[in-house]
Order: sequence, then C-alpha cells, then structure tokens
Amino acid sequence: MGGRATLNSVAAAANVSRQTVSNVLNSPELVSQDTRERVQAAIDQLGYRPHTAARQLRTARSQIIGLRLKPARGGVLDQFLHSLTAAAERHDHRIMLFAANDDEEETHAYADLIASVGVDAFVLTGTHHGDLRTRWLLDRGLPFVTFGRPWGAEDEHPWVDVDGATGTRMATDHLVHHGHRRIAFVGWPGGSEIGDDRRAGWAAGLAAAGIDARPQVSVFDGVAGGRAAAAELLDGPAPTAFVCASDSLAFGVVAELRERGLRPGADTSVIGFDDTPTAEVLGLSSVAQPITEVAAECVRHLRAVLSQEPKPTAVLLTPRLMLRST
Amino acid sequence: MGGRATLNSVAAAANVSRQTVSNVLNSPELVSQDTRERVQAAIDQLGYRPHTAARQLRTARSQIIGLRLKPARGGVLDQFLHSLTAAAERHDHRIMLFAANDDEEETHAYADLIASVGVDAFVLTGTHHGDLRTRWLLDRGLPFVTFGRPWGAEDEHPWVDVDGATGTRMATDHLVHHGHRRIAFVGWPGGSEIGDDRRAGWAAGLAAAGIDARPQVSVFDGVAGGRAAAAELLDGPAPTAFVCASDSLAFGVVAELRERGLRPGADTSVIGFDDTPTAEVLGLSSVAQPITEVAAECVRHLRAVLSQEPKPTAVLLTPRLMLRST
Repeated sequence: MGGRATLNSVAAAANVSRQTVSNVLNSPELVSQDTRERVQAAIDQLGYRPHTAARQLRTARSQIIGLRLKPARGGVLDQFLHSLTAAAERHDHRIMLFAANDDEEETHAYADLIASVGVDAFVLTGTHHGDLRTRWLLDRGLPFVTFGRPWGAEDEHPWVDVDGATGTRMATDHLVHHGHRRIAFVGWPGGSEIGDDRRAGWAAGLAAAGIDARPQVSVFDGVAGGRAAAAELLDGPAPTAFVCASDSLAFGVVAELRERGLRPGADTSVIGFDDTPTAEVLGLSSVAQPITEVAAECVRHLRAVLSQEPKPTAVLLTPRLMLRST
Repeated sequence: MGGRATLNSVAAAANVSRQTVSNVLNSPELVSQDTRERVQAAIDQLGYRPHTAARQLRTARSQIIGLRLKPARGGVLDQFLHSLTAAAERHDHRIMLFAANDDEEETHAYADLIASVGVDAFVLTGTHHGDLRTRWLLDRGLPFVTFGRPWGAEDEHPWVDVDGATGTRMATDHLVHHGHRRIAFVGWPGGSEIGDDRRAGWAAGLAAAGIDARPQVSVFDGVAGGRAAAAELLDGPAPTAFVCASDSLAFGVVAELRERGLRPGADTSVIGFDDTPTAEVLGLSSVAQPITEVAAECVRHLRAVLSQEPKPTAVLLTPRLMLRST
C-alpha cells in the first residue's frame, strides 16, 4: 500500500473509528455534523479514495467468512451464541458477528452492517440503565430484540430475560427448607441492575421465612472478592449458608471455607449463579439460566418484529436450581 | 402454514437435511444424483414451491442478524471466535456463523452459504485424519484456512496450528528441571491426532532426560477419567508428577490426589493443557495456546488466498507454560 491513504489512516487523522469513517461514506445521515466534517477534512487532506465498492464489484466478493460454531459448554454467552445460531438457522436466518469496544461503537457498527451487508435485525446483550443502543435503534425504527430487560428505561421493545430474583429466591428457599437461618448474601455493589435483582430474590426469601438478620457483603466480582467477603462474614457470627450473585464469588467463598477447615456442603452450604463449567467441575450448586430457551425466544421475537406481526410481549424465563455437593 | 409443504417437510420426506434440499434448489451440482432425485421426488409429491428468493426480493431482506461478540475468557474456541472476529474486521471481513452436526453436514452448509449469502471463504476448526471437508473445498477450488494441521493428509492447504508436542515437552522439561523422575502422562486413547501429539512431547522430554520408566494411562476425557487414571497410577509406584493432555483430565488427577491426602503442588505436581478459566480458578498449571496469534494468522492466510498471493506457508505456533500452584 506504500503511502496511499487508507480507511485506517483517515480514521487516525480524524481521531474516529474506522466504522465512523465508513459511516460517513455510506450512511452520512447517521453521523453528527461535527464528526462528518472532521472526517471529510481528513479524507480531503489525505486524498483518500474509497474503493471498496468498486473492488467488490470487480471481484464479486462479499468479504464474509463462514465459520461453523460447535456446541461448547462454555459460559452463558457462549451457550447463547450457539443456541442462537441453531435457532436462527431453523428459520433461514444467519448470525453475523461484530466487535465493538463500547455501546457507542456498537451503534456505529449497526449503521455499518446495515449499509455494507444489509443486516436485517440485531440481537443485543447486556442491556443496562440508560442504554443508548436501544434508543438509537428505536429512533430509526430498526428491528431488534434484547437478551436483557430494558432496566428502568421507558422504551418499549421486545426483550427476553431470565428472572434472576426468582433464581436466588429458589436458592434461599431451598436453604431455609433445609434448616438454615443465617443465610448470607455475597453480591456486587448496588447499582448493578442484575446484581440488585439477584439480591432482591434472596431478601424476599428471608422475609418470607420471617428471618430478620441479614448478613451481606458487597464486593467486586471475582474469586478474590468472594473470598474476602466470606472472610469478613465468617469473622462475625458465622453464616451457615451463602447465596452468591455469581459462581466466581461462590468459588471464593468455598476457598475461604476450606482455608478455615470448614467443609462446603457439610458444615456450610454455598450456592452460586450461572452454572458455569467450573461449577460443574467443582461440584458447586448454582442457579442455571435456560439459555436454549432464551435463544429460541429471541429468534421468535425477531421473526414477529420482521413480519410486523402484533408486537410480541416480553418474556421472563425462570431459571433452575442445580444442586450439587456444596 | 397449515398443510402447505415447507423446506422442512420436504427434507423429512426425503430423509435429508434442510440444507441439502436448499442445495438441490440452489446449487444442484453440489449434490449427488441419487440425493437430487430423491429430493426432487419429495418436492413433486408434496407440491413444494420454493419462495424464499421471491420473498427476499419482495422484502429486500438479507435474513442476516447482527450480534456483537464481547471478549470472554471462555475456552479455546470461544477465545478464538472473539479474536477471529476482531482480526477479520481490521481487514473489512465479517464472520458469519453456522451450525452443523457433522463434517458432511458442514460441507452442505458451505454450499448453502456460498449460494445464499455469497460467502467468500471458510475457517475450519477441528481438522482430523481423513477430513472430508478440506477435500470438498479443495476439489472446488474454494478459499479456506484451517485452525489445525492436515493430519496425515496429502492435501496441501493453508493452515495454522499450535505445537502441542512442544507444550507437553515444556511441561516435562520443567518437571525434570525441578527434580522429578517419575513423571506420568494421562492422555486419551491412541488415534486422536492431538492426543498423540501431546503424548509425543512428554515422551521426548523423558527421553532427553534419560528417564526410562514411563508410567502412562489412557482414558477418555473428563474429570472422572482423569481421576480413575490417577488412581490406577497411584496404586503402583506412585508418580511424583503428572502431565495431562487436557485440563479436565488434570482436574481429575488433582481430585484423586486430594482424596488420598496428597497436596497438589507440594507433594505431587500436576500440569494440564489448554489453560481453561477453571484452571485459573483452581490454580492449575497448564499449557496455554496463543489464540489471538492463531486468529490473526488465520486472517492473514485467508487474505493471501483471496488475493491469490503466493501460497502462504503453514504456521505452527508455540504454546506457553502457565505455572500456577499445582
């Protein structure tokens, strides 16, 4: 390429992403005027000549690479990806992947995929309060479905989610049923929608059992966090059971129990969340999300939106408690 | 749909996959004459009228759904998928996923993706002896690259792989260097190319150290398999170290050591393979594949093939030994 201007050099000069440059060229209406002018200035200055369309015509290339996705017992999102691919294919749809570093970049990628590939619809994961992606898609009337509720947003759109509160409620009820009265919660700091939801299910389970004392510790995620939380709780009037917002936190709790000579499952019960492969290997009880069903519902919703059938209602699925040795 | 014939009902009547029916309609040259006739008979009998093309023209739909793939520390293939998506995008390529239950179905999917979406090229994983997918693609001159060597095949095609034998050799050398002389291998039954390769590295490490005794046990994969293998080995003249063909096997070895009151890492060393997230949580030493580099090399090879640059050479990358507490 020598010193010839490229999409990359234009992006660097204008201090924007490659996708934004592509949008300025293909879908300028999606880019703010400021950005458009900055990119256009870089294009002029560097003498960039977009040639992708011409090259594609010449070579009749789609630039699309096919990859078979095999079933893998990975984390929640890996399982979701495989189930979604299979569910989409049953209805003649295909899944195209893209990367983005944040939500804003994700919206730029939407515009690029619509312009370059003609993508019909999107599936979004990780919805959160003030999610600018759903707003962006709604503003443009583009079809999409989210795996995740519109947390606190007024926007109405099709969504599929798993009832995390019911999951921790099931875990807490199970522990109460087995005679536990000091049931601690190890979760994330407040403000995480998913974390607050999981905490609420535990609190409701205690309330229903008439249990007042509520030991709980909030930490950032990870095994070290879970271990620190367990240490803090065990230094006080020790809980006999732990409900955790994630399997990682639960692994930390288990490690701290072992360190203190307590046997998880015998002396103290521990229940995690998400039923990761590691939970299975370690015999950790955990709350499992019905991922295959989530994926099937996402495709069903998308098909309804694409066919302009009556607006599909949102779906909240119930998780399952996987009881193992802890 | 009532009693109207569909792609599914034709496939069921002809006892073939939906993709095969689609191929008969879109790329009949890819289907054997027998199958073609059987499918055509079912189409005639059921009165099936393909209408996808007409529908697509009417609605201008691509049937493609976009999904952002977030970085996830999952297994090897999950990491590969994310790295591949990012590497492809840097060169204006996109990754489209598809599902298939076996290699033959995967070749039907190739034909379908070429005909329906115009996919340019394929990335294959899990190459094996007598792989009919690479033969199928070579016969048709279609561009592809494999993550995995052409094990024993005469076919020449671009590939990227990780040198598993060097990984287990590094693990064995490390153990020898720390004074171990009875180093067992827990692997899969012979005939698995990847398993035999990993076993060969361990054997070479022992030979280089002048160690004769070679306790080894072959079992099917999984934690239970690893545990049974460790039990068998520990009942004899107990090894002081274990090199394992997978992390799952290594977890089983660790469980059996604990059961016998032996402390992994102190009394007995254990090294797994693949550096799974579970290995990190459990502090298991493991051999890690350089997945980001594999993905980048796959894209580089594909671009060379697509540009008809001189045939790219195959690339064998070196893994890394991740030393943890075991």
